[in-house]
Amino acid sequence: MIVSLKADANPAEVLRALVSRGLWVTQVEKSASGEPRHYVIASYSAATSVEDLASIDGVSGVTTSKVEHPRVSAQGPTVDVSGVVVGGVKPAFMVGPCSVESEAHVREIAERIAPLGVAFLRGGAYKPRTSPYAFQGHGEPALGWLKRAAEATGMKVVTEALSEADVPAVAELADLVQIGSRNMQNYALLKAVGRSGRPVLLKRGMSATMDEWLHSGEYLLAGGARGVIFCERGIRSFDDATRNLLDLGAVALLAHVHKLPVIVDPSHGAGRRDLIVPLGRAALAAGAAGLMIETHADPPTALSDGPQAIPLAEITAVLRELRAAIPRPTSNGGAS
Amino acid sequence: MIVSLKADANPAEVLRALVSRGLWVTQVEKSASGEPRHYVIASYSAATSVEDLASIDGVSGVTTSKVEHPRVSAQGPTVDVSGVVVGGVKPAFMVGPCSVESEAHVREIAERIAPLGVAFLRGGAYKPRTSPYAFQGHGEPALGWLKRAAEATGMKVVTEALSEADVPAVAELADLVQIGSRNMQNYALLKAVGRSGRPVLLKRGMSATMDEWLHSGEYLLAGGARGVIFCERGIRSFDDATRNLLDLGAVALLAHVHKLPVIVDPSHGAGRRDLIVPLGRAALAAGAAGLMIETHADPPTALSDGPQAIPLAEITAVLRELRAAIPRPTSNGGAS
Amino acid sequence: MIVSLKADANPAEVLRALVSRGLWVTQVEKSASGEPRHYVIASYSAATSVEDLASIDGVSGVTTSKVEHPRVSAQGPTVDVSGVVVGGVKPAFMVGPCSVESEAHVREIAERIAPLGVAFLRGGAYKPRTSPYAFQGHGEPALGWLKRAAEATGMKVVTEALSEADVPAVAELADLVQIGSRNMQNYALLKAVGRSGRPVLLKRGMSATMDEWLHSGEYLLAGGARGVIFCERGIRSFDDATRNLLDLGAVALLAHVHKLPVIVDPSHGAGRRDLIVPLGRAALAAGAAGLMIETHADPPTALSDGPQAIPLAEITAVLRELRAAIPRPTSNGGAS
Amino acid sequence: MIVSLKADANPAEVLRALVSRGLWVTQVEKSASGEPRHYVIASYSAATSVEDLASIDGVSGVTTSKVEHPRVSAQGPTVDVSGVVVGGVKPAFMVGPCSVESEAHVREIAERIAPLGVAFLRGGAYKPRTSPYAFQGHGEPALGWLKRAAEATGMKVVTEALSEADVPAVAELADLVQIGSRNMQNYALLKAVGRSGRPVLLKRGMSATMDEWLHSGEYLLAGGARGVIFCERGIRSFDDATRNLLDLGAVALLAHVHKLPVIVDPSHGAGRRDLIVPLGRAALAAGAAGLMIETHADPPTALSDGPQAIPLAEITAVLRELRAAIPRPTSNGGAS
Repeated sequence: MIVSLKADANPAEVLRALVSRGLWVTQVEKSASGEPRHYVIASYSAATSVEDLASIDGVSGVTTSKVEHPRVSAQGPTVDVSGVVVGGVKPAFMVGPCSVESEAHVREIAERIAPLGVAFLRGGAYKPRTSPYAFQGHGEPALGWLKRAAEATGMKVVTEALSEADVPAVAELADLVQIGSRNMQNYALLKAVGRSGRPVLLKRGMSATMDEWLHSGEYLLAGGARGVIFCERGIRSFDDATRNLLDLGAVALLAHVHKLPVIVDPSHGAGRRDLIVPLGRAALAAGAAGLMIETHADPPTALSDGPQAIPLAEITAVLRELRAAIPRPTSNGGAS
Repeated sequence: MIVSLKADANPAEVLRALVSRGLWVTQVEKSASGEPRHYVIASYSAATSVEDLASIDGVSGVTTSKVEHPRVSAQGPTVDVSGVVVGGVKPAFMVGPCSVESEAHVREIAERIAPLGVAFLRGGAYKPRTSPYAFQGHGEPALGWLKRAAEATGMKVVTEALSEADVPAVAELADLVQIGSRNMQNYALLKAVGRSGRPVLLKRGMSATMDEWLHSGEYLLAGGARGVIFCERGIRSFDDATRNLLDLGAVALLAHVHKLPVIVDPSHGAGRRDLIVPLGRAALAAGAAGLMIETHADPPTALSDGPQAIPLAEITAVLRELRAAIPRPTSNGGAS
Repeated sequence: MIVSLKADANPAEVLRALVSRGLWVTQVEKSASGEPRHYVIASYSAATSVEDLASIDGVSGVTTSKVEHPRVSAQGPTVDVSGVVVGGVKPAFMVGPCSVESEAHVREIAERIAPLGVAFLRGGAYKPRTSPYAFQGHGEPALGWLKRAAEATGMKVVTEALSEADVPAVAELADLVQIGSRNMQNYALLKAVGRSGRPVLLKRGMSATMDEWLHSGEYLLAGGARGVIFCERGIRSFDDATRNLLDLGAVALLAHVHKLPVIVDPSHGAGRRDLIVPLGRAALAAGAAGLMIETHADPPTALSDGPQAIPLAEITAVLRELRAAIPRPTSNGGAS
Repeated sequence: MIVSLKADANPAEVLRALVSRGLWVTQVEKSASGEPRHYVIASYSAATSVEDLASIDGVSGVTTSKVEHPRVSAQGPTVDVSGVVVGGVKPAFMVGPCSVESEAHVREIAERIAPLGVAFLRGGAYKPRTSPYAFQGHGEPALGWLKRAAEATGMKVVTEALSEADVPAVAELADLVQIGSRNMQNYALLKAVGRSGRPVLLKRGMSATMDEWLHSGEYLLAGGARGVIFCERGIRSFDDATRNLLDLGAVALLAHVHKLPVIVDPSHGAGRRDLIVPLGRAALAAGAAGLMIETHADPPTALSDGPQAIPLAEITAVLRELRAAIPRPTSNGGAS
């Protein structure tokens, strides 16, 4: 954003007015050619409108780059998924196994979690795996198992589409089609999923910027998707102390500045089940519209990602903790 | 960590027992020389003891690297700072200006925040600035202004030491000596501050790993510091959508796995005041022992970091929001 | 890799023997259960065989993780692309426009570069663009323009496949099928391209590890690709001083340790044409098997990435500089 | 940089003129207030002057941010270190042990390398180590050993200052004072070293941006340093395939755009001796003014960083390879 000054403006006063709005300002110097001074504002803030800045005394004009994701900007904070509103006052929980391993297994999970108020049953029929020799998912049959388990228990289905060729089958059965991290910029897939008309859960790429993520959402909406829900699942970092680096600043930015619905996946974000509760609570506090959590009847035998799955026997307790209010600190600071 | 198997062990059973403890396992193959199989466990978990793993049926031995930060590991979750316990049930708030700009300014802030239950008055007398031509802080006089304002209002002082030469002056007046991000691996400074005996607030370096951070804490304790409180303030990332990337996974790891006190600085973490409340609440939910927040009577005139400072007139409301319990989600998931 | 010691081994002697081979060693401590000591070797080195390490006095066994990309490991340093060997003593140059904009334009380029010894004509018919509203390439017609230009001038064609649906058309006309960075882990596309049987140029993902990159190559070879040539084009970094961060350490590792052919794309790596020559020369010095360079008859009018394209009028000079031997330093160091 | 347009300018023509100079352009839209259009140019290029851009037809003015490192910008490409010019046509080699372990050891190395045309003897008397319990260097005695070995063999001394307190002793004996990566933003140390007046070798911080690095150089020059030589030694990355990530794009940028002398340290950059030759040659090709290389009479017994040290017995061969011209590719591309 560029704020231009009138010839008789008091630059210090304009600077003051801009910083008072929480904007970081880079002052650009007067050139030899006698132009008026300019200020470049590096940080974007939805709370500040162009009209507001143009009204500052001494400002002659405000210019901005064209927003290139108009449909995403216009979407708003909620998405309706087969009658369930994501992004409203109640957090949406999306729970299930990493992979759909058998009809009995996904059914057992569904029956356990549905009574706990979990609205979405998640599970992978097609699994993106780093090695071509790792388990790739049970494919189309698993879609059927997932759908029947969800219908029998009154839940909605969220599952990933990996290949353009699978989109019709996935879109027919899924209430919410997931795009995985590795495919966030697989534009052919985004277009194919968009054409299906389904709402989409768009996971962030391993090193995607906010801008790239929003643009991928725009591909979906421009293609015909009925809504886009973003999903933060941890980005790549230099430290292997956790599996990924959960970026809750991005969640706060999406929720509070861009006013968009964002789900957080603390299972992948930390890669270890003992941090799912604190990070899940932190995500909700940061503004997440819900959580995606992996569970398994017997994690050690899981065909993928066992160490981060919550044992099914513990899922009731975990959901209870995630929903518990964070204790209100007393008013005397750290004084003992 | 390496788990060795007995010659007659059932590897699948051992694998199962390890994953059931939430450990990620890399199986290492049998070599030509006829050795028993081994399992390498990549992830560290405080919840799993060597004794526990050694007791698994089929395991012949468990070997681990020597912990090289024994004093940090032994410290425990609380540090007493001049009678104020950091890391207990009540979050510690550390509030004040980025730079101590004048005696009147810091006194005005102190008088406003002390009644709000803020235990620590923060403020920079010595400021590390990227440019040698930027304001470098008022130095020793500012230490006195800070101390008198804190004493008059019953707060403790936390302020940064930048130079070995300044350590005696800082340590005499500060209750808690801060090491800034740029100096996290300035070992000469860590040794000098350690020798002062004061408890220390150790900010994480811009791209420090957890392991390096813990080792820097060890320098302080080995040197004589009475306690180390860690401070996450955002790390460097590839995305400039926020000023830094607040790593709340590291906070959860320190708090819940390493059982160490960690303060979070959402002012630097996001660099924009409109995200301080959601990220501050998220930090507390993740396990932070407290928050460090910048405030200023008139942010646009601040000598440093104005855009991220909370206007003093709003600090009461911000602290109230940070302390408010996060609303308890109702039990029917995202259903409308 | 784990090196186990005999009960009577001298650990210091074994350590010495390992470090003398250039290996970084983490010593793992003896456990309570009376096991022999172990050494974990973190760094991999192709120059060190398991047999060699097992022969060290005092070593009872050496165990390693199973290599999960056996086909990539077995491929070797050269790939034959329609009769042109990539990875031999002569660097392969792949030159052409970012997008194939018209038949006349690509033909003009081909006629200019073919006499310069450029073996491959590059050009995008399908373009992955961050925004859905940016130019997406001329598609199938552009494939024909590219092919005819290459055939008329005796060059081979390298062009990108973006969608599974386009693979048959691309594979029919391209001598070398390119997988772009955003699709490095688009496994459905990798499988489809593998099935075509063509050799593949696999660009590295924006934040792909060496291990992930090799595994994606394995997908291609397991699927049927006749060979994989890797392509480093810069990774994501925290600094925007250059468009991307060209990782020539990865190039040296692929070329000298893994013995695989790797092409470097300095146009994307730096994003500015004034660094293409120094970085192209550096890439060849690091072990690159060739270079991919963008050119355009009139960069300012290019439909994509103009600022990094070499003007066609300068391509002769640029190729001459890239091929010029780096001047031999004289022997008296920096003495003037 | 902001380029403003005249009211009657043809924006497409101006855009064309800017891109033809290799600049990436972000077009900023006209605002409601009737201001003329602007163009923001994101990339900096020394090859393009403000005057040149202002002369483009249709441009009414060009404004830029004030350069905040004027002394660094004014320094130029060479620094004289006790009579040895760094940055001239002949590469400067800085060779020696990681730590100065004994007078005999450093003397043996000096006698071996001096006849090979190595101008600088390097070696650490004070060592920054992640753990407080690791070997910290022999300190002041080691400075004397280093100095005598250099004087006896006609070399110059480069060694690191770690603490403000050690600066006088280091500056008295060193011809070139090194600032290590961990201290690149230790401003108290930069000021102290600057005051000594010595030329300085400034290693880049683990995640320092180009801008921060240049500003740290400005601290040195503003403080009184006689010259600053930059040193790239690898930055932090997400991949542990190499110890650090050597950023030769930054080297090319410093050498060819900023016209500053930069030394490359491939020993730390890769962390493995088998990549030192290819990366050292690549560094020279990218524009490095010289190389810093670690050697040791017996690497397995080195007190620090043995695996990356070149055995002294091989240093003659390594230097010969580093100086050898890179073979000139023949003109028929990759054709076999």
